[in-house]
Amino acid sequence: MLQLTTEHAGVDTSAVDERLVAYTERLRQVRRSGAYDAYESSIGMPDDAVMLNQVQDIVAQKVTGALKYSIVVGIGGSNLGTKAVYDALFGGRDILEPTRFPKVLFAETTDPEWLTAIGRLLETISTPEEVLVTVISKSGGTTETLANFEIIMRVLRDTFGSVTERVVAITDEGSKLWNAAGAQHIARLPIPAPVGGRYSVLSAVGLLPLSSVGIDIVQLRRGASDILDRILGDDNIAMQSAGVLALSRERGCVMNDNFFFHPELESVGKWYRQLMGESIGKEQSLEGKMVHAGITPTVSLGSTDLHSVGQLYLGGPHDKLTTFVSSRKVAAVTVPTERVFPELVPMVTDTSAETIMAAILEGVQIAYRKAGLPYMEVVLDAIDEYSLGSYLQFKMVEMMYLGQLLDVNSFDQPNVESYKVETKRILEKG
Amino acid sequence: MLQLTTEHAGVDTSAVDERLVAYTERLRQVRRSGAYDAYESSIGMPDDAVMLNQVQDIVAQKVTGALKYSIVVGIGGSNLGTKAVYDALFGGRDILEPTRFPKVLFAETTDPEWLTAIGRLLETISTPEEVLVTVISKSGGTTETLANFEIIMRVLRDTFGSVTERVVAITDEGSKLWNAAGAQHIARLPIPAPVGGRYSVLSAVGLLPLSSVGIDIVQLRRGASDILDRILGDDNIAMQSAGVLALSRERGCVMNDNFFFHPELESVGKWYRQLMGESIGKEQSLEGKMVHAGITPTVSLGSTDLHSVGQLYLGGPHDKLTTFVSSRKVAAVTVPTERVFPELVPMVTDTSAETIMAAILEGVQIAYRKAGLPYMEVVLDAIDEYSLGSYLQFKMVEMMYLGQLLDVNSFDQPNVESYKVETKRILEKG
Repeated sequence: MLQLTTEHAGVDTSAVDERLVAYTERLRQVRRSGAYDAYESSIGMPDDAVMLNQVQDIVAQKVTGALKYSIVVGIGGSNLGTKAVYDALFGGRDILEPTRFPKVLFAETTDPEWLTAIGRLLETISTPEEVLVTVISKSGGTTETLANFEIIMRVLRDTFGSVTERVVAITDEGSKLWNAAGAQHIARLPIPAPVGGRYSVLSAVGLLPLSSVGIDIVQLRRGASDILDRILGDDNIAMQSAGVLALSRERGCVMNDNFFFHPELESVGKWYRQLMGESIGKEQSLEGKMVHAGITPTVSLGSTDLHSVGQLYLGGPHDKLTTFVSSRKVAAVTVPTERVFPELVPMVTDTSAETIMAAILEGVQIAYRKAGLPYMEVVLDAIDEYSLGSYLQFKMVEMMYLGQLLDVNSFDQPNVESYKVETKRILEKG
Repeated sequence: MLQLTTEHAGVDTSAVDERLVAYTERLRQVRRSGAYDAYESSIGMPDDAVMLNQVQDIVAQKVTGALKYSIVVGIGGSNLGTKAVYDALFGGRDILEPTRFPKVLFAETTDPEWLTAIGRLLETISTPEEVLVTVISKSGGTTETLANFEIIMRVLRDTFGSVTERVVAITDEGSKLWNAAGAQHIARLPIPAPVGGRYSVLSAVGLLPLSSVGIDIVQLRRGASDILDRILGDDNIAMQSAGVLALSRERGCVMNDNFFFHPELESVGKWYRQLMGESIGKEQSLEGKMVHAGITPTVSLGSTDLHSVGQLYLGGPHDKLTTFVSSRKVAAVTVPTERVFPELVPMVTDTSAETIMAAILEGVQIAYRKAGLPYMEVVLDAIDEYSLGSYLQFKMVEMMYLGQLLDVNSFDQPNVESYKVETKRILEKG
């Protein structure tokens, strides 16, 4: 699972905690009910046995040992959670592991070069069973997703004829995509109506593609369920973390830098960028007052970014609250005794990569404290399905609390319509 | 080359321009002299014929058609520029192109999983000529870089015996690494003394690895040289852009979001994060006053991040100046006439991916204007060596001007020592 430490955040959340007691009771009720009838209903998903069975049935029907490429066609909430888990476990190293299969490939924005390359790659497969295409759109009408889907399906059709049996559509029950897929007997999985994209990683949206490549979704769900027990029991780290974020915002921390000390967690950071950005970046308060609320989430990677934005963080404006994220990994690689340049940085000889990284993280935290820079720390027990599930669920509940504290709706995203309307007008004009 | 538009930035830079006339004259002199004796000397590199010849000689000696993996061992300024150019041209798609060679592989932080995977990959090569290891450290004593280098060299030694002829060291002339490499007759290339990591992409630091995989470094340098002619001639877009950043900072834009509308430019954004973060994120002013200056650079990708942080940008706090970056690409991929779901988003049928992306970018800019969000726009003529060289050089000079405007030293990074001291102490204690 994971540990949260807030002692170096420089704020006292005890007063904040009081305000959220009633909301915690609400979350307990929503979870107990298991129904999908409230904004917060996503917290029922880790215990939803029907949802798991539906996903496992489709995987059993569609996935064999022949699968090489599980293609996720989706953008934003439709792929960021899947990418977070996949990259944490495999994807950051896909370039180094060209012969490891199955891989997840992501088609998100409509980039011509990417689509051309994915098309060429698909021309190399020999049977339809080597590919699974999961098209994901909550509304069923996401422009980039539908465009990419058609472009990819044309490549497959040119080679194999109709391959709609290699497609799974994940969308709201009753959406246009739901109905269109049904009319062609394409496999479908629903997204529970009140579960928005950024809270959907533990629905079929994440479970199906992750499971298709052998990631243990039972453990992923278990990690989430267990941390919910803890949060809604007697160790509410989500409330605590939200309190630190809200109070730090009042003190001028307009950014929350999520500083991951394992590069494979970068996509976890990008998932959190959406979660925080969309949930609390709001023009209006719950009462409809213009507030322009928000904290800007950023993602940094240790130790890489110490050699990049480290100078800014240590010397620049005090406008950030940092959340360090690391895990207790087992050391696997050591600097050898026999070296090419034994005289250079001699202290690393016979030292594991893990020890070096731990020393850098500790050195940075000491430097932050000396410079008066506030931070929280999250330590994952491991980078595995269980700990990742607990982290994702922890952060989703944190964001529900943070919305309460900042007096905004954590579940809508009204302003993105503004550019979609203009884009649609431009495309329709042709 | 590229175009800059600042009309929607909402600031008037004409007063700012006056203050920088003398500095422009200084830059002209530094460039004309071609010597490496000033902070700004990096601007002489695109016209340095000796530097180009040294790189080309090493490439001619070390690179044959057998090369598969050109490994860059370096962190921060030692690899971000190379990664920017490589990913823009190839790297974003390496996962989709497993049989395209040669590839650049980057070893930056000391991550055990990454090092294990790179080790396994190297065990698959059959001759030393398939690999080139470039170890890059300006100081010659970067912990992560030396540790990674030794770990990678052990893998090669275990298979092939000593392969120091497959190594190139790039470092300051006279550094410990320079001397140690010389003692073992390992090929070396110097980094001009006053050129810091974040200004070094057009030195051997970037030129050697990029050239090793066939990227046209002559065109890269030409793009840089040509835009210097323009900037130091009668179209000073670097001064203009720096003026917009400085004035926007005064108006509360504490972040500069670099919003790239081609996902392959993400690493260009990460290069810029270091350039801006380290150059102007400063505790002290030029006169030694405590100022905690800085603008936090962020990187967003269109259209992906519209489905992520778009809500925050459009509805949240007005604390960002956005720089949109796109290019005039030729359309290559089109949504087919024959579709699986013709009834879904029918307006994209027969529409190219490029047209969809252009409509989204235009829609976003209209939405930004309506919301009163300030932005600049950079349009590259193409995503090729020439335009990338001009973009990188433009931004490096922008940062020199911005340091002048914010009254900080754009060339040092004093605060990063604070954590390095602590880390060294921890590692030496063991």
